[in-house]
Amino acid sequence: MEIVAENRCFGGVQGVYRHASTACACDMTFGLFLPPQALRGPVPVLWYLSGLTCTHENAMTKAGAQAWAAQEGLALVFPDTSPRGDGVADDDAYDLGMGAGFYVNATETPWSSHYRMWDYVAEELPALIGARFSVDMTRQAITGHSMGGHGALTLAMALPGRFKSVSAFAPIANPTASDWGQKQLTAYLGVDPSSWSRHDATLQMAERGVDGPVLIDQGANDQFLDLLRPEALANAMVARRQNGVHRMQPGYDHSYFFVASMMPDHIAFHADALED
Amino acid sequence: MEIVAENRCFGGVQGVYRHASTACACDMTFGLFLPPQALRGPVPVLWYLSGLTCTHENAMTKAGAQAWAAQEGLALVFPDTSPRGDGVADDDAYDLGMGAGFYVNATETPWSSHYRMWDYVAEELPALIGARFSVDMTRQAITGHSMGGHGALTLAMALPGRFKSVSAFAPIANPTASDWGQKQLTAYLGVDPSSWSRHDATLQMAERGVDGPVLIDQGANDQFLDLLRPEALANAMVARRQNGVHRMQPGYDHSYFFVASMMPDHIAFHADALED
Repeated sequence: MEIVAENRCFGGVQGVYRHASTACACDMTFGLFLPPQALRGPVPVLWYLSGLTCTHENAMTKAGAQAWAAQEGLALVFPDTSPRGDGVADDDAYDLGMGAGFYVNATETPWSSHYRMWDYVAEELPALIGARFSVDMTRQAITGHSMGGHGALTLAMALPGRFKSVSAFAPIANPTASDWGQKQLTAYLGVDPSSWSRHDATLQMAERGVDGPVLIDQGANDQFLDLLRPEALANAMVARRQNGVHRMQPGYDHSYFFVASMMPDHIAFHADALED
Repeated sequence: MEIVAENRCFGGVQGVYRHASTACACDMTFGLFLPPQALRGPVPVLWYLSGLTCTHENAMTKAGAQAWAAQEGLALVFPDTSPRGDGVADDDAYDLGMGAGFYVNATETPWSSHYRMWDYVAEELPALIGARFSVDMTRQAITGHSMGGHGALTLAMALPGRFKSVSAFAPIANPTASDWGQKQLTAYLGVDPSSWSRHDATLQMAERGVDGPVLIDQGANDQFLDLLRPEALANAMVARRQNGVHRMQPGYDHSYFFVASMMPDHIAFHADALED
């Protein structure tokens, strides 16, 4: 594992690291914020999954999360959103291929040789981080924005017991019924929709829900409301009596200004769930 | 004045605006954050001047200042760092020309026709903002990073009574004695060093100081310490008995992770000085 950068940040360290990924069969880069409390012993960890077009870097520099994580003593992980490199398949569209892994294990050509972001985020990267940094992997929580909110919700529901809490900022909530989903799930998983359902937060909420608390924030002025389908997830949460809150935030759009504005509440929410 | 963007942010609005600048003889773009308190009446305003290579956007997206400004009810102005456009002189170096205006009024060709950032930040932009937004121009403060810290300090000392307080993050503290300064001041103002002294924070501190309180933060691991010359400014501040604090911050470098980490203290410092 190579240290790309380490910057002092709110008394802790904002690091960027690169490693050879087995899951993705390429080099992968991730960000990790360790709060000052990590010097005294392992700290709980919050995963932040990013949205379409992002790398590990967007949230690390624009979400303002380190300020609140340092107060609460939480580590933050910022994975990339897809495999990358010369030999990795891509597409001209911003919403397929690099920057658009959708947190699935692709089964279809040309994607299946590298696009295994589910395994990368669910298995390989947690093992690496647990082995190499002062984090307590028995205390994990997960969040994400847009495509990353989709990833956070679907991972949390598929891995019961793994995450103490899950939240999302404007998640792609019902991809099997959206152009943000049908296109990508067809490309990565094939035309049979039965293989898609585990990657749809609304369907998974209806089928199984999640143990820990759920917090969803959605901007009412989000320019992508039709693609995100938040009403489907809200319906499924309440129909299931899921322990959770779905908040509609007047005036906010889909940008990182929205994410940064809601971040204090999300960090406090996860810190509360992660307390021993 | 054209609205480029307005995003809801921490209950207020992060706007980006473009206007035809008389001082710079080109279109100029600036960011302005209005906190929610501005809906109820004019709020005090903190100027943030950016460093080399930056536009209006860097601090707006990476410094995390809106979170704290919204708590305190402060507006934030993020000017660009130079004139821009097809007809504007430039240089291949990152530290001269576009992105490197150094907050001076250039007198030398080819710079003098557009590079009038002093007049732009000291006169034109305050007049525009005071006329068009819910801000109280009798309550202003100023800060900045690196080249912007140089600008903040030299403006505050040249305009007594304008700013209630001044702070800086790793300012270029003594440009007349540094390669970050001699090169640019020669290009913009000519070879005679007597025209440079009003643009050197250390010389101005020795000569006149400033009424309001001063807060300087400097990272001890800053990769540009030799160019910034913080010891010269600290010497001048203490020799003058200036009301102020110069803090050396262990472990921090020159990045926006440093700026963001110190931002809560700077916003609190200015909010305190700006209280009625």
